[in-house]
Amino acid sequence: MRGTLASLGEKGLLSLIFKKFGRSRHRGLVLGPGDDAAVLRLAPGRVLVATQDDLAEGTHFETSWADFRRLGHKLFRINLSDLAAMGGVEPVGVIVSAGFPADAPRRWATDFLQGLSDDAKSFRTPVVGGNLSRSERVFFSMTALGAALPGRIIRRSTAYAGDVITGIGPLGRAAEGLKALKAGVRTGPEVRAFYEPMPQFRPAKVLAEGRLATSLIDNSDGLARSVALLAEESGLGAEMDLSGVPIQGDPDAGEDYGLVFTVRPSRWAALRRALPEAYRVGRMTSRKGKGKGLPSGGYEHFHAS
Amino acid sequence: MRGTLASLGEKGLLSLIFKKFGRSRHRGLVLGPGDDAAVLRLAPGRVLVATQDDLAEGTHFETSWADFRRLGHKLFRINLSDLAAMGGVEPVGVIVSAGFPADAPRRWATDFLQGLSDDAKSFRTPVVGGNLSRSERVFFSMTALGAALPGRIIRRSTAYAGDVITGIGPLGRAAEGLKALKAGVRTGPEVRAFYEPMPQFRPAKVLAEGRLATSLIDNSDGLARSVALLAEESGLGAEMDLSGVPIQGDPDAGEDYGLVFTVRPSRWAALRRALPEAYRVGRMTSRKGKGKGLPSGGYEHFHAS
Repeated sequence: MRGTLASLGEKGLLSLIFKKFGRSRHRGLVLGPGDDAAVLRLAPGRVLVATQDDLAEGTHFETSWADFRRLGHKLFRINLSDLAAMGGVEPVGVIVSAGFPADAPRRWATDFLQGLSDDAKSFRTPVVGGNLSRSERVFFSMTALGAALPGRIIRRSTAYAGDVITGIGPLGRAAEGLKALKAGVRTGPEVRAFYEPMPQFRPAKVLAEGRLATSLIDNSDGLARSVALLAEESGLGAEMDLSGVPIQGDPDAGEDYGLVFTVRPSRWAALRRALPEAYRVGRMTSRKGKGKGLPSGGYEHFHAS
Repeated sequence: MRGTLASLGEKGLLSLIFKKFGRSRHRGLVLGPGDDAAVLRLAPGRVLVATQDDLAEGTHFETSWADFRRLGHKLFRINLSDLAAMGGVEPVGVIVSAGFPADAPRRWATDFLQGLSDDAKSFRTPVVGGNLSRSERVFFSMTALGAALPGRIIRRSTAYAGDVITGIGPLGRAAEGLKALKAGVRTGPEVRAFYEPMPQFRPAKVLAEGRLATSLIDNSDGLARSVALLAEESGLGAEMDLSGVPIQGDPDAGEDYGLVFTVRPSRWAALRRALPEAYRVGRMTSRKGKGKGLPSGGYEHFHAS
């Protein structure tokens, strides 16, 4: 265990990354590592939003049960979800890398491409490029590119003490879907939730255009951890209260790709009118680093398991 | 073999991809799959150039001999090389995905990050984001983002019959480096050529600003295959003549990341003045699909080997 990545942990590794890359002061860089996506200034009045997310055999899926067309959907959506988590962002294209063993059934690749093609249409977002490699294990990596007005970007680090922590989107169902798939189930709403999370572009746009949210993140690492990240990045504490939250499984299991955001108490009524499906998750406090109902962990990518 | 990706081959898979994604007519998409990088119109007078390239354990390197810091260099440079192969492009940022097993030595990750950090400085190109996954085999995926004036983009598909096919950059040395690494050698110019290919930004800029090249590609899949691709994309044939080419190994082994481009005969003298290190590789002909010295293959990513 000593000297391994698992012993360093994702948190340790991320803090190393931020130390190395977090303070980059490159002309044109608006927002570097540490949020849902990067933001670059490419032309006056317009920013580029870019994010990358992966699916790896053995970690996110097994070839014994995976439906590769639906993995194409999942890869597309988890990436678009990171764009939506930046606020009022319009997706402009995706780039895809895929690695397959040489003896992989060709259906794996053709199904995967069909899945990408389906979602390129559904989300009006073209596949603009990519890369194919031979690889001993299947892996997929996607970069999603979006465009936004600079004022429509909502960060993680800008919540205020007293803000209402708010959520949108289903909770826990996708993780139930993963359990079901491992148990041999191939259909049903949980499996669908796992394969086809819905990027929350419309709510994110409403939040950005109405200036309703002071901070925003997606909940893909679990609800409590997402709240902890918003609090930490904003230099605050948080108190969670899930009594009003529509939970369909473990809300901290991740995989859901809904949104978590903060709302000034004075804007709460306006928020409820604009997004009636939003639910209250808790409250930001000024007690930095302190929390009620917050996790010690969440999903640690490098935990030995 | 039947029904596997190896039997379909990279060419078969690529033609499927172009069929699915090659004719996307999305507003804002200037150039989709099939060139060294994608080109998107993001704001008036300015295009975004984006490309993705990967390194996978077992295919591009083995953990038994890999120097992860230098793999960081290689990943950075093979991606920047794809930007340079689009003409006068200024890199604006990279996004990196890395997948490691949980029991991987943490040095693999810290060395890799140091390599990225080195090259972020060398090429004044910030690491703007990324993603970490657990994965049974190590993989790295990078997206490089660049900006350009629309008129400074040089495509693959715009060569003319009669053009002089021209190359720049070392040939064959990087593949010798890979052989050396597999044989236990860890230093020397060949190993350096393998780990640290040099993106040809300066020559590419000269070509773009001087309007010296009618088409442009990088030679990472081997010299002959790159020429074949330029000819094919331009609806031409090609005759190769390597008598004047400074070859240090097998020029068709790939990994070199130099440039191959075409020059109108009337511009040849100007090209030689601007880039004295350029060498003549052959000539484009109007005999579509016919070639002399052209490959049947080149590097086929999905050949069973």
